[in-house]
Amino acid sequence: MTPWRTAIVHAHENSIRLRGYDITELMEKASFADVAFLLHQGRLPSAHESRIFNAILIASADHGAGAPSCATARLAASGNRQSFSAAVAAGVLAIGDNHGGAGARCMELIAEGAALAKQEGIPIEEAAQRVYQQLLARGERVSGFGHRVHSTDPRVDVMFRLASEAGAEPGEGVRFVRAIEKLLAAKTKPIPINVDGALAALLHDLGFEPRAGMFLFIIGRVVGLTAEVNEEYTREKPMRIKVPVEYDGEGPRSL
Amino acid sequence: MTPWRTAIVHAHENSIRLRGYDITELMEKASFADVAFLLHQGRLPSAHESRIFNAILIASADHGAGAPSCATARLAASGNRQSFSAAVAAGVLAIGDNHGGAGARCMELIAEGAALAKQEGIPIEEAAQRVYQQLLARGERVSGFGHRVHSTDPRVDVMFRLASEAGAEPGEGVRFVRAIEKLLAAKTKPIPINVDGALAALLHDLGFEPRAGMFLFIIGRVVGLTAEVNEEYTREKPMRIKVPVEYDGEGPRSL
Amino acid sequence: MTPWRTAIVHAHENSIRLRGYDITELMEKASFADVAFLLHQGRLPSAHESRIFNAILIASADHGAGAPSCATARLAASGNRQSFSAAVAAGVLAIGDNHGGAGARCMELIAEGAALAKQEGIPIEEAAQRVYQQLLARGERVSGFGHRVHSTDPRVDVMFRLASEAGAEPGEGVRFVRAIEKLLAAKTKPIPINVDGALAALLHDLGFEPRAGMFLFIIGRVVGLTAEVNEEYTREKPMRIKVPVEYDGEGPRSL
Amino acid sequence: MTPWRTAIVHAHENSIRLRGYDITELMEKASFADVAFLLHQGRLPSAHESRIFNAILIASADHGAGAPSCATARLAASGNRQSFSAAVAAGVLAIGDNHGGAGARCMELIAEGAALAKQEGIPIEEAAQRVYQQLLARGERVSGFGHRVHSTDPRVDVMFRLASEAGAEPGEGVRFVRAIEKLLAAKTKPIPINVDGALAALLHDLGFEPRAGMFLFIIGRVVGLTAEVNEEYTREKPMRIKVPVEYDGEGPRSL
Repeated sequence: MTPWRTAIVHAHENSIRLRGYDITELMEKASFADVAFLLHQGRLPSAHESRIFNAILIASADHGAGAPSCATARLAASGNRQSFSAAVAAGVLAIGDNHGGAGARCMELIAEGAALAKQEGIPIEEAAQRVYQQLLARGERVSGFGHRVHSTDPRVDVMFRLASEAGAEPGEGVRFVRAIEKLLAAKTKPIPINVDGALAALLHDLGFEPRAGMFLFIIGRVVGLTAEVNEEYTREKPMRIKVPVEYDGEGPRSL
Repeated sequence: MTPWRTAIVHAHENSIRLRGYDITELMEKASFADVAFLLHQGRLPSAHESRIFNAILIASADHGAGAPSCATARLAASGNRQSFSAAVAAGVLAIGDNHGGAGARCMELIAEGAALAKQEGIPIEEAAQRVYQQLLARGERVSGFGHRVHSTDPRVDVMFRLASEAGAEPGEGVRFVRAIEKLLAAKTKPIPINVDGALAALLHDLGFEPRAGMFLFIIGRVVGLTAEVNEEYTREKPMRIKVPVEYDGEGPRSL
Repeated sequence: MTPWRTAIVHAHENSIRLRGYDITELMEKASFADVAFLLHQGRLPSAHESRIFNAILIASADHGAGAPSCATARLAASGNRQSFSAAVAAGVLAIGDNHGGAGARCMELIAEGAALAKQEGIPIEEAAQRVYQQLLARGERVSGFGHRVHSTDPRVDVMFRLASEAGAEPGEGVRFVRAIEKLLAAKTKPIPINVDGALAALLHDLGFEPRAGMFLFIIGRVVGLTAEVNEEYTREKPMRIKVPVEYDGEGPRSL
Repeated sequence: MTPWRTAIVHAHENSIRLRGYDITELMEKASFADVAFLLHQGRLPSAHESRIFNAILIASADHGAGAPSCATARLAASGNRQSFSAAVAAGVLAIGDNHGGAGARCMELIAEGAALAKQEGIPIEEAAQRVYQQLLARGERVSGFGHRVHSTDPRVDVMFRLASEAGAEPGEGVRFVRAIEKLLAAKTKPIPINVDGALAALLHDLGFEPRAGMFLFIIGRVVGLTAEVNEEYTREKPMRIKVPVEYDGEGPRSL
């Protein structure tokens, strides 16, 4: 088999380097979140970037035992206690377009807007307006805006505050979602930025590609999934979960 | 990389052989269940064995949308509609010691009894009694007996009837579980053989190893899992499942 | 929680019905493949349909230890021997658009052609030509045609032969892929129908939706996956698999 | 369905609390690793504990594309590009007793030693000796010691150095593995503590249960898995991986 090529880890007999940095130096001086940033971006974050990145991962860690990812992991653990990794993996599998996917979709819109702004030499706010018009024309919704329950997500304000700390100018991502927010505010019922939209704006400004939206959600959520599975193991009996079912199919028949 | 060795499939440019049989001949003349038997046992089943084996797989196919495997698959599908295989795999992950594992454990007891009978030159019924006494002494339960609900599992009778069809003498597995059943019947509250015990007896008599108990349950159940996931996709909206949660942990506190 | 609705299984205290049929009757009289057909289609297949359906599942069962699904399952088993279901699930996860997905994509083309034929009142062959022209115009390839190695897949002929047995008229699916084949034969280098194209044609004619292409591949392949994992367990040591890696990233650097 | 109870997350309409702490306060002031510690332990770590905990997670993040977890994830991604989470989950499934499990097993030995020391009122070093003698008597190996390649793992020294920083007294876990190391040094060929043993000692001293050994390995490794899958997506073509296979089974035969 041809060797696989990789630019991530170089493991020698007596040394392990992650993106060129000696793992022992990272262990002594870097934070775990910084190493996650490094492995995905190929560079270490600044102190300001690190603060934002930690906040993003924390915001994704857990949102309650009933979220699809956590509930899936607990259900799997309820039947299978032979392997912790099986239950955690089952939880990861519930993450996709509908759960944990809105951030990545919003990042795609921002990337589209950024490309348009660059190509046409227009401000990102104008590009945001054009991207929004195209969505409207296609009858699509803007990912990253609006809440399922009529409430404010407390995580949104913190993210934007952190992003603007230390006098930082708002990045392209933040300007994009703010521009969309303004357009939506003109409606009879304003639709606020939600946590996925805030995450998307900040991740774009940290230099991540749209795809990263889901990868980082997975990294954050696995911390919650392991804690949820551990709680299921230690507090609950196997097979405790009974989902109520109602049959509405074909009546009795014979071959 | 050293090539991996295998005794299962031989794929040439213009021919594919499974355990030595040309796949086109199997496609024309064998049943799918027979091929499952072949891949696991290295030989094709007799007509009588095939009937029993089909019944075992059918018995495992589905038991309702609320079983841990099916509910896990549906929950995963509720969040992630990007990959059918992700939802099916999540369902497979709920299969383990507590869900789909009793058959394998009962098969271990039968294998233990069979080894004892052979080694000591005693009838399998006597070996069953000794295995049972050892379990009692260790304070363990006999897997394959007893029901969670006070009822009769309709699948059990059919299995034993199929096994004894065509004048077949009861095999070691059947004799083992029948002997245990007799011991348990002497109790004030008799504990009948359940579907896992019947499956275990028949699979042992078909020549399967204990481990196969779980593999065959997975093969059978994947048929149900795919149907359940398909129904979730076609009849239900994403993110429809909300699990009710009650918090009973630490009260509000500050850093 | 609101009960989940389902039209697949009705499980009572003393009876289990699959799509209305008593599971014990199915265990006695039906084949495992027929039950798979029933759970997905809501009806039992005819004898002719059953033969084709068995062949399709057998064709998908295994293609060698090195196929992505089998190799993934074996690699997972190499690190994790705590749960059979974990290794099997890992193998299932390798099934997707690029592995096991061509059949479903070809079924979408057939469904598109069938809708066009019905809507415009034209023969399916003419609809096939139009669908093909649209693909060409978009610069896309026709899924279900062509081989990675320059050879004939032995499974293709058998499938078409089985489909036309008992004097059966060729269905819409078969006619569609045959029409495409004719168009491709006019090229300098003819591109034959491959196993995915044959599967797609037959599944369409059996009444399955495009999505089913992948579900049925999963059902078939799980039989192979369990056998491969079992062989890995019984013949190989844990952690035996070493994949050769070559680092081509950033050179040594310090924080 | 009865509500599920949990002591991890309390999600209200306008507030989310993790183990009692407001998520916005954690986002502003805590690190991601600290939140992982909090979710698993119910308390935030001290600055010294946090440094050690970050190092442990970094040490587990990635060890090369050829490790079973990373190779499994890449193989799955090679066949299935429909869902990032599917590939990451496949990688998680390769984590188990043989890959990522040695730490948890070593933690069990330490916990056993700690219980013995407490119960008998003896120093942990003496308890270590007894645990070791019992292992020898059962013919078992001591998890957490010895290398597959004859070399020194650079991560071990750093861990012990971090643990003893700020004048910290060595904890029970460190003293236990050091005592075992001394016993093994008396052998003709000394067997050093490996990274799993160092991790186990430190995690025990941070207050984690043995089970946590694997959970924390999963948390760390998911960072590497997402980066490996991302690299597979961006640098490689689908289906590029071909594993060489050699057939050594039954020769050609007919039905």
